[in-house]
Amino acid sequence: MSAQSRAAVLPAFEAPLEIQSFDVPEPAANSAVVDVEFAGVCGTDVHIQNGRMPIHAPVVLGHETVGRVAALGEGMTHDVLGEPLEVGDAVAWQNSIACGRCTYCLVEQEPTLCTGSRLIYGMNQPADAFPQLSGGWAEKMYLQPGTIMVKLPEGITPRDVIPLGCAGPTAVHGVLHEVQINFGDTVVVQGSGPVGVAAAIYAQLSGARRVILVGGPAVRLEAAANLGVGHEYFDVTDGGDTEERISAVKALTPQGLGADVVIECAGIPSAVAEGIEMCRPAGQYCVIGQYTDHGTTPINPHYITRKQLRMHGSWGFSPQHYIRYIQSLPRLLEQFDLASLLTEYPLTAVNSALEDVKAGRVMKAVLLPGRAGN
Amino acid sequence: MSAQSRAAVLPAFEAPLEIQSFDVPEPAANSAVVDVEFAGVCGTDVHIQNGRMPIHAPVVLGHETVGRVAALGEGMTHDVLGEPLEVGDAVAWQNSIACGRCTYCLVEQEPTLCTGSRLIYGMNQPADAFPQLSGGWAEKMYLQPGTIMVKLPEGITPRDVIPLGCAGPTAVHGVLHEVQINFGDTVVVQGSGPVGVAAAIYAQLSGARRVILVGGPAVRLEAAANLGVGHEYFDVTDGGDTEERISAVKALTPQGLGADVVIECAGIPSAVAEGIEMCRPAGQYCVIGQYTDHGTTPINPHYITRKQLRMHGSWGFSPQHYIRYIQSLPRLLEQFDLASLLTEYPLTAVNSALEDVKAGRVMKAVLLPGRAGN
Amino acid sequence: MSAQSRAAVLPAFEAPLEIQSFDVPEPAANSAVVDVEFAGVCGTDVHIQNGRMPIHAPVVLGHETVGRVAALGEGMTHDVLGEPLEVGDAVAWQNSIACGRCTYCLVEQEPTLCTGSRLIYGMNQPADAFPQLSGGWAEKMYLQPGTIMVKLPEGITPRDVIPLGCAGPTAVHGVLHEVQINFGDTVVVQGSGPVGVAAAIYAQLSGARRVILVGGPAVRLEAAANLGVGHEYFDVTDGGDTEERISAVKALTPQGLGADVVIECAGIPSAVAEGIEMCRPAGQYCVIGQYTDHGTTPINPHYITRKQLRMHGSWGFSPQHYIRYIQSLPRLLEQFDLASLLTEYPLTAVNSALEDVKAGRVMKAVLLPGRAGN
Amino acid sequence: MSAQSRAAVLPAFEAPLEIQSFDVPEPAANSAVVDVEFAGVCGTDVHIQNGRMPIHAPVVLGHETVGRVAALGEGMTHDVLGEPLEVGDAVAWQNSIACGRCTYCLVEQEPTLCTGSRLIYGMNQPADAFPQLSGGWAEKMYLQPGTIMVKLPEGITPRDVIPLGCAGPTAVHGVLHEVQINFGDTVVVQGSGPVGVAAAIYAQLSGARRVILVGGPAVRLEAAANLGVGHEYFDVTDGGDTEERISAVKALTPQGLGADVVIECAGIPSAVAEGIEMCRPAGQYCVIGQYTDHGTTPINPHYITRKQLRMHGSWGFSPQHYIRYIQSLPRLLEQFDLASLLTEYPLTAVNSALEDVKAGRVMKAVLLPGRAGN
Repeated sequence: MSAQSRAAVLPAFEAPLEIQSFDVPEPAANSAVVDVEFAGVCGTDVHIQNGRMPIHAPVVLGHETVGRVAALGEGMTHDVLGEPLEVGDAVAWQNSIACGRCTYCLVEQEPTLCTGSRLIYGMNQPADAFPQLSGGWAEKMYLQPGTIMVKLPEGITPRDVIPLGCAGPTAVHGVLHEVQINFGDTVVVQGSGPVGVAAAIYAQLSGARRVILVGGPAVRLEAAANLGVGHEYFDVTDGGDTEERISAVKALTPQGLGADVVIECAGIPSAVAEGIEMCRPAGQYCVIGQYTDHGTTPINPHYITRKQLRMHGSWGFSPQHYIRYIQSLPRLLEQFDLASLLTEYPLTAVNSALEDVKAGRVMKAVLLPGRAGN
Repeated sequence: MSAQSRAAVLPAFEAPLEIQSFDVPEPAANSAVVDVEFAGVCGTDVHIQNGRMPIHAPVVLGHETVGRVAALGEGMTHDVLGEPLEVGDAVAWQNSIACGRCTYCLVEQEPTLCTGSRLIYGMNQPADAFPQLSGGWAEKMYLQPGTIMVKLPEGITPRDVIPLGCAGPTAVHGVLHEVQINFGDTVVVQGSGPVGVAAAIYAQLSGARRVILVGGPAVRLEAAANLGVGHEYFDVTDGGDTEERISAVKALTPQGLGADVVIECAGIPSAVAEGIEMCRPAGQYCVIGQYTDHGTTPINPHYITRKQLRMHGSWGFSPQHYIRYIQSLPRLLEQFDLASLLTEYPLTAVNSALEDVKAGRVMKAVLLPGRAGN
Repeated sequence: MSAQSRAAVLPAFEAPLEIQSFDVPEPAANSAVVDVEFAGVCGTDVHIQNGRMPIHAPVVLGHETVGRVAALGEGMTHDVLGEPLEVGDAVAWQNSIACGRCTYCLVEQEPTLCTGSRLIYGMNQPADAFPQLSGGWAEKMYLQPGTIMVKLPEGITPRDVIPLGCAGPTAVHGVLHEVQINFGDTVVVQGSGPVGVAAAIYAQLSGARRVILVGGPAVRLEAAANLGVGHEYFDVTDGGDTEERISAVKALTPQGLGADVVIECAGIPSAVAEGIEMCRPAGQYCVIGQYTDHGTTPINPHYITRKQLRMHGSWGFSPQHYIRYIQSLPRLLEQFDLASLLTEYPLTAVNSALEDVKAGRVMKAVLLPGRAGN
Repeated sequence: MSAQSRAAVLPAFEAPLEIQSFDVPEPAANSAVVDVEFAGVCGTDVHIQNGRMPIHAPVVLGHETVGRVAALGEGMTHDVLGEPLEVGDAVAWQNSIACGRCTYCLVEQEPTLCTGSRLIYGMNQPADAFPQLSGGWAEKMYLQPGTIMVKLPEGITPRDVIPLGCAGPTAVHGVLHEVQINFGDTVVVQGSGPVGVAAAIYAQLSGARRVILVGGPAVRLEAAANLGVGHEYFDVTDGGDTEERISAVKALTPQGLGADVVIECAGIPSAVAEGIEMCRPAGQYCVIGQYTDHGTTPINPHYITRKQLRMHGSWGFSPQHYIRYIQSLPRLLEQFDLASLLTEYPLTAVNSALEDVKAGRVMKAVLLPGRAGN
């Protein structure tokens, strides 16, 4: 193992990232060091840089990562599903480790709601304390005991795993676990970023007959259409007339009653009021996108009673969703050319990548820390 | 059968009711005439008088009614569950008949969402067309084919059925069908009118360990407490400090996380924002009370995602809920002295009864059309 | 309308069917007369001929039927979903009418379990009483009030509806309502007759990743394979070694644990013991095929506890399943050439058709009563 | 801490237990030593002594245990729910630790089906290897890292926890998680041992209106009745006429249709065939008792299809069920005098206690290892 690894460090909030070099520790028991091949840049990274998340700098960012085993600590003989691990194996891992002991981990079996202390790679692990290399924007990354690490299924490469980033398991959670897509359903997906695209993919694979994407900007809707994701598209970039859009969407549903399932992946509070109106009576509404607190928005609760809506919130993902996401990739890749979503950057171009994400210029920015020429 | 029946007719919106006399028709095939013993006065009747419902005057009001069989048409030999019917039998009946043929009746099996033409006794049946006596505020009432009529269980009298009025089956729908109360749960009920009281009763009978009533005015909370309904009480009559109330309610829940289940029966839009905050992460929220459209209210959708709430709307009730309500009465009456909720009026005092309901002076006003001295 | 219609009548049990001619009644109110285009021959018809069903002869058989409106009675202006009806419209209809008033129809909302009197076309309607033409093996058929009649969706012809016969809605009930197929599941279908083929189709359309058909004889498995139904096939015609088959099936499932979902459509009691062993721990087992009572079979209940199986029985179908079946046909026909399953006979060849079904020589036998040359 | 602890050791299968003395280790990090106050004797202990379980002797038996903290290892500062722990605190703990990393632990979230290596106190921990004191039939017991230890709720003593033994959390799993008891239900419980009694208690607390206990011998049914558990009783000790018993049970259910929910806690394979017949159409059947493999029994699968039964297996319990059991004790003890079930023995009388359990002479035998005079 090389003794040093470069990493992109956020030195302070609202500052550009810096490339620094760190010693690579030998992995302790039940730990591992990995060579990072791809590391995604997520909208959340923009929020972190801006100081909007309750974490501390300096930190190596990067919470969507995939690579190959570089070194295995004592006892680290198998992945989380019991597959034997060797140096060189392609692996992916969940970005968080829940406490495993609080009411939500143990009794409710909802580790997404963990109230204990939760490690999140690329977010709440300081760059100035051991093991330093705790984020994915680095040549090497150090994985601690309890990490949900999965050897990639046969035929799946790191480049297959990265395009959906943390949006993939987030969509698995909401679309496959919180609501129920039935064969033949009409589904509206609000938002056409990575979570929206992933949600639409899982809805289609679950038997949805017609998926209506309500998002934007146009370039994202076109990328989705080129991928075969969605059947009808509405661009909300310019705001438009909400009532007209609701009517137009409902006109595409059986008897004009509204969608069987609406999945919110937009992240804008007002989308929820609009989504409620797009649901048919007795429909289901999955609210995935309201990840950050933007305060209140006017909502008419009469529709919830009158239509007997079932609304389910879905927050991030837990090990079961992450593993199911990895396991679903062979089927996804048969139908969807996910690599077409990627825009690749060397590690040293990290600030450009972040700018492009901030500007919505790319569908999915990824860093390639391990490549020559970085 | 007496040839004439008096009935309280709403001649026009915003006018007082008038006592008129009508010929009592012989019941046609699969129809019946009943002697009304008790007819409830509901908050909805106030809305009707004020012209806020999409119906036409003149109309005989009264959609919560119970009595005895006066005459049976040809083929009307059994109640809806197959029990033989005879003149004099104590019976209750659902106040509406869904179309039975639309998507919601047939495919979704949600007759509450019937999109066909739906008969509603005491609401959308005109007093100036056959059979005229289509509301419960009358000595006799005419029941058409398809009415969900149930012979009262042994030991149950008409006076046992009337205290919860249409609130009883409404609560059965929401509390027993839309959400799931588990043994040991902490449940918040918002609203202490008839629906709130009925919801709290069904929550307790389903194994809730602690029921917190958030309602008012004080006289209603005291009536509930005297009945053994609820374990903790919060009076919201003066508005109070919403944040303080939310904190105080959460302090009564395990680990201060919030209630396992919140049931909204308040009918005020802002109650929904408050109820969302009272739910614990992974909790359930049943929105029963937003029966009429009062427009939007500020709601923070971040909590829905962050807490992974399950919100279920519940609208009125269907035959299954009505029948289950009647069947549950023997068990309810073992534990709760429902008759203590009643304030009784002769039919001729209908306008006073309506005034008392409007003013919130009584828990449950009922007319006794069939009693001497009316 | 022609004054006469030929029909195939079962005059007595164990006797061949006879072609008789009947007067065609004018349709009464809320009734209709239809020109039969296709009428399926089902395994149940063999049981009826052999006297194994609790019904009476003489009877016009045929409970899987599709055709065109010949005459509409007063009030018969729309189909069950509100679509306007005219003479000449292509229509299909459910073969039974539940009572609509018993506990199972009203409270449980499980009309398949109706305990009232239930009309079944082609089975319990006598050929020697009005309206006589109550089975589908006839040029014309008389549909009574309450029949669940559906106008075919645009682009769907009677010939599209008939190949799955009553197996189609039976599979909808079991596969889409009683169990839950999740995206990526491995599903075993036991039985490769029409119900098995239909179950496999709905499993695939619901996102199953691998469908294993365990049935026979070889000709049926080949027909399924040619249609694109199923991914792996096991022929049980010669009995074979049950333990070996269980092992071979489990070897095709992830980690060899067994199938996520097993759907029994075989009708042989011993299939249930085998299916229980093919399920993985925490798997689901849908028992659709045990339609008739063949007595007990040795089953090891330890597996139910040890694996925490979820077993769901599914009996026939109700209006919601029938309607959903018709609505699903456009999607089915995109992917599956159902017509390839058909073997067609003129009405006069009814006894040959029945022989071919009895011998398992054909996948789906259908009579064409309305065609020239019959 | 005393340097030595006596313990009851099974030296070899089919041999009597011997009282031996062991050194008490100092607790390592995240470990604890407890003073045992009560240790239950379970039917499974009889199976272990007889050599019917896949484990090795010598072993300290005892998998139902409750006591007080004697010493806490480094880091062992809080119980599993975050309550601070001190020497002297009354605590209870789950008898097994699942691997936490297999498909069933991580993806399915069904740790009862753990396929990894699972520690079970009092069963698979050898008495001749560190820490030796790994069973509850001992003065002191050593708890390893990962043990689900719960500080008892205020007002709950070790003597309150022990009467239901491992039957309590087993019933929580089946009755509260696998099936759904609805308010007003008629419930049949098959078996009147500890699991049957616990299942009946949870059914009553969940709102069941009538609980029918089908078990024996008479002394156990009387003990249940004295406790207020169940409303009707059938003694099956002499076998009796199965058909008559089924009819008699159904006669106690609404319309004679059968029970809404049947819960099997009998452990005899033939009970499952009988329980299936006692269910009403669309009823639920929870199979908890088929814990060990006694081979096949004749079952009629037609009833599963015909009645559309929902059958759910339930195997042991997981942390969530154990914790919920402890949390439910305050409510249970309000209504049920569980201590009346106990027969107490000193540790030295362990072989007599085991004999009494084998003979069915007692409802619940418990050892008191820590008491003077042992």
